[in-house]
Amino acid sequence: MSEIKVYQEILGRNDRKAAENRKALSGAFCMNIMSSPGAGKTTLLEKTLKTLKKKYLIGVIEGDMATSNDAKRLRKFARPNTIYQIKTENFGGGCHLDADMVSIGLKKIGLPKKKYDAVIIENVGNLICPADFNLGEHVKIVMLSVTEGDDKPLKYPVIFKAANLVIISKIDLLKHTDFSLKKARSNIAQVSGKIPIIELSSYEGVGFMQWIITLVNWLKNSGY
Amino acid sequence: MSEIKVYQEILGRNDRKAAENRKALSGAFCMNIMSSPGAGKTTLLEKTLKTLKKKYLIGVIEGDMATSNDAKRLRKFARPNTIYQIKTENFGGGCHLDADMVSIGLKKIGLPKKKYDAVIIENVGNLICPADFNLGEHVKIVMLSVTEGDDKPLKYPVIFKAANLVIISKIDLLKHTDFSLKKARSNIAQVSGKIPIIELSSYEGVGFMQWIITLVNWLKNSGY
Repeated sequence: MSEIKVYQEILGRNDRKAAENRKALSGAFCMNIMSSPGAGKTTLLEKTLKTLKKKYLIGVIEGDMATSNDAKRLRKFARPNTIYQIKTENFGGGCHLDADMVSIGLKKIGLPKKKYDAVIIENVGNLICPADFNLGEHVKIVMLSVTEGDDKPLKYPVIFKAANLVIISKIDLLKHTDFSLKKARSNIAQVSGKIPIIELSSYEGVGFMQWIITLVNWLKNSGY
Repeated sequence: MSEIKVYQEILGRNDRKAAENRKALSGAFCMNIMSSPGAGKTTLLEKTLKTLKKKYLIGVIEGDMATSNDAKRLRKFARPNTIYQIKTENFGGGCHLDADMVSIGLKKIGLPKKKYDAVIIENVGNLICPADFNLGEHVKIVMLSVTEGDDKPLKYPVIFKAANLVIISKIDLLKHTDFSLKKARSNIAQVSGKIPIIELSSYEGVGFMQWIITLVNWLKNSGY
């Protein structure tokens, strides 16, 4: 069997499992957040949980190659037993989450029984491989930090094409880089078409309310 | 055939091709530079070529999923016909360079006939997949920018374990982040053991001469 055929079979099986995950979510709205390593996904989730945990029941599946550091960080801001860490090294060193891993995570946070408002999946830090693997999510979010450069949407088009929302993060560092928001927006439009873009600084708070409003609107209008 | 067996076969075939690449280098010292997207690999190479191109014949194989932007940037600082861009999307959207792609690149820059002092391979921006694929290089270099966070060596241990040198880049941004050089050095030591670390700011020039001296010492002592 050729390598390409093996890969297609893997993706086909993954899509079937992703459909099962969608059912197991039991009406919870599910987001898959992807970015390069260190773009600020976990920091945004810390603040998101802190802001919304009283009103909404939110679960998080954390993905990393190694360590449970991110789950530990999030548990400080979350309700008990709502955070689960997947270490992909236990599944052969994977460079992305797949639907099988997420199905384990969903069970670990109590689904399908527990009635979550939202489940957030923080993918492994990688701008390439996660794009190919549906997890059962309703939306895919790509985060791009200004320190990575405004050219990245053109260089990693597959993941930006798959995105429903792009968050440009660390804009507090804009003045110290040669990143152009105008160029970045134009490059995102070139590969992703007309999709919403949020400019965010988790440190300074800029854009954070726009993110929260986007998320709450998704929850309200979802009917998932 | 199981997926793991297919992957092992791919890696075995890749290693054989990497050995062929090593011969095709014809005595040139070869470096494989890896990092997350936007850590500053191309900027460092621009300055390196500018500094060394009169004295040394240096070839560069550029790897990206899409665009030839990086090769275009480097050609301004390089001798004619010494830079070749590999777009992995033409090979099925690869998240890393493999030895087959590099063998094409080596031919395109005139090897094995042309007598290079050094060949630098800039890998696709990805802290996971490139670690598994030998390309025929003599040393692997991992670049980590301070904006990514000091925890990354623990989260991406495979690539840091494979490294012969770690470059901590963008240290001009240190004061704007919570990155601790001490923690980073300790985390690198934990996974990589005692390997050289260079703290670099391509913008301010800090650490650049240390990098050039390291590179020139490799060329002098190589006998490859």
